[in-house]
Amino acid sequence: METKKVKLVEIGPRDGFQNVKEFIPTAHKIEIIDGLVAAGYQNIQCTSFVSPAAIPQMRDASDVVCNVTQRHPTVAFSALVPNYQGAQHAQAAGIKEITPVISLSASHNASNVRRTHEQSLEEIARIRHDFPDLKITQDIATVFGCPFEGRMEIAPLLDLMGKIYQLGIRAFTLCDTIGVAYPKQVKEVLSAARAAFSDCEINLHIHDTRNMGMINSYTGVLCGADSIQTAIGGLGGCPFAPGATGNTSSEDFLYMLQQEGYQTGIDQKKLLALARNVHETIPTGNFSGHHIHITTQQCGYTDL
Amino acid sequence: METKKVKLVEIGPRDGFQNVKEFIPTAHKIEIIDGLVAAGYQNIQCTSFVSPAAIPQMRDASDVVCNVTQRHPTVAFSALVPNYQGAQHAQAAGIKEITPVISLSASHNASNVRRTHEQSLEEIARIRHDFPDLKITQDIATVFGCPFEGRMEIAPLLDLMGKIYQLGIRAFTLCDTIGVAYPKQVKEVLSAARAAFSDCEINLHIHDTRNMGMINSYTGVLCGADSIQTAIGGLGGCPFAPGATGNTSSEDFLYMLQQEGYQTGIDQKKLLALARNVHETIPTGNFSGHHIHITTQQCGYTDL
Repeated sequence: METKKVKLVEIGPRDGFQNVKEFIPTAHKIEIIDGLVAAGYQNIQCTSFVSPAAIPQMRDASDVVCNVTQRHPTVAFSALVPNYQGAQHAQAAGIKEITPVISLSASHNASNVRRTHEQSLEEIARIRHDFPDLKITQDIATVFGCPFEGRMEIAPLLDLMGKIYQLGIRAFTLCDTIGVAYPKQVKEVLSAARAAFSDCEINLHIHDTRNMGMINSYTGVLCGADSIQTAIGGLGGCPFAPGATGNTSSEDFLYMLQQEGYQTGIDQKKLLALARNVHETIPTGNFSGHHIHITTQQCGYTDL
Repeated sequence: METKKVKLVEIGPRDGFQNVKEFIPTAHKIEIIDGLVAAGYQNIQCTSFVSPAAIPQMRDASDVVCNVTQRHPTVAFSALVPNYQGAQHAQAAGIKEITPVISLSASHNASNVRRTHEQSLEEIARIRHDFPDLKITQDIATVFGCPFEGRMEIAPLLDLMGKIYQLGIRAFTLCDTIGVAYPKQVKEVLSAARAAFSDCEINLHIHDTRNMGMINSYTGVLCGADSIQTAIGGLGGCPFAPGATGNTSSEDFLYMLQQEGYQTGIDQKKLLALARNVHETIPTGNFSGHHIHITTQQCGYTDL
């Protein structure tokens, strides 16, 4: 039988932590990232180089990157960068992959990075030009729906991706920032993006706000997304998208993938133990995962 | 375009309420059932005729049935009956459909109804014989997995269904009592049951314990289940299945079905308002739904 593989990208240390108000000590952040590596993750978005005034939780981004990239040289770490300055700091800290962010909806782009589409595209162009040694994976937020404008359409998405493609970028992550995507929409959007940008990497980032995190993420697998982003414990949200809640839970999604016969390279028992530790030690986090709440022994189920 | 329809059976007043320790006043139970009818439900499992000593919450089963069947004569109400005495009380209260229950796993059957398979089958035969005017839909619990025995197989399920078929029963509900089913398993089990019992009604009952409630229930739709059972707010559990948590949330599942283009006859706005009311007024319930927690206005999304 053919081996089915799925590439999982862990984003809890970025999308998850950024929504926790109480500062998580740098050592604890690193400890959790170490745990992810020990569980088998090869792709981790480990922080965000944002303004410390806007998101104080991420003020230790350089320290986290310096530490984990040096101690885990074979792991592909990435960091989100909302602007040129973020890219500078990210490179200085030693990261090899950065993720600029632009929202499909103009209103969310204004709210999230305080730029027009034109201003964001200009800045992405400068980043692409000035950091030729960094891999750039472009996040596109509010692909499926926007808190201010409602449902988004495919044509403007392909138009925006085309403009970014022309800047030389060949990797995208399509983000359901507020958790409104549904399976048919995920299939239509991914199919259209795949067809239009066949030489690009196209990744999927889903939130579980409306309880469709698992089915949408799995639809992404079935539609050939290059990777699926999930967060440990189902942590997550967007500070500038009202009502956005947790990402698809890494350990819930991994459990299902294993049942369905996929290989991911990740150890479910280690991941679940880590998720429970994160849930216990960061009690104010926004957790949407289910496995962390299962406490009763049940015979034969390896997730307990 | 073809109209795609899904029959939803609401089971919150049974599976949901039975797991709430504080007694829900009979008038409030009836008020919630009235709300479900007002939202458009035509099929509601409204209570359980169990021992009041075992589950005090259900001690008003007769009162609930008398009231709602008389005031909503066109709605198909059913009640769970764990034994012959329950069937007697259910008929006396005026119900037209009863649901006896047997577990695929012998150990859960012993724990849940304190009978061997042979004893349960004898009792189901007596119920079928002595209540010829009642529709019987047979619940089969732990079809996908058992808290004491682990994963269940398809062959013994078909064997058990065959024995029940020989008693004259033509409607089954396959229950994932502890929420361990995964999409591939749901597809395999439903396909096998469909093929073996092509003249029977086959319904699906899913729990969201491992965050697969939505995807498993939707897999049931795609595999031709005759109805999907869900519970308002994602209430639910099994008092004799350790670790079992909420059912698939009615309002979450309805929202997705509507996005996917299905018709159900149910009003999403009314249902969501009712779910929030249930969540507020029964705070000790075991809720797995997500929509009830969305509080922030988002443009263009009708579920808010």
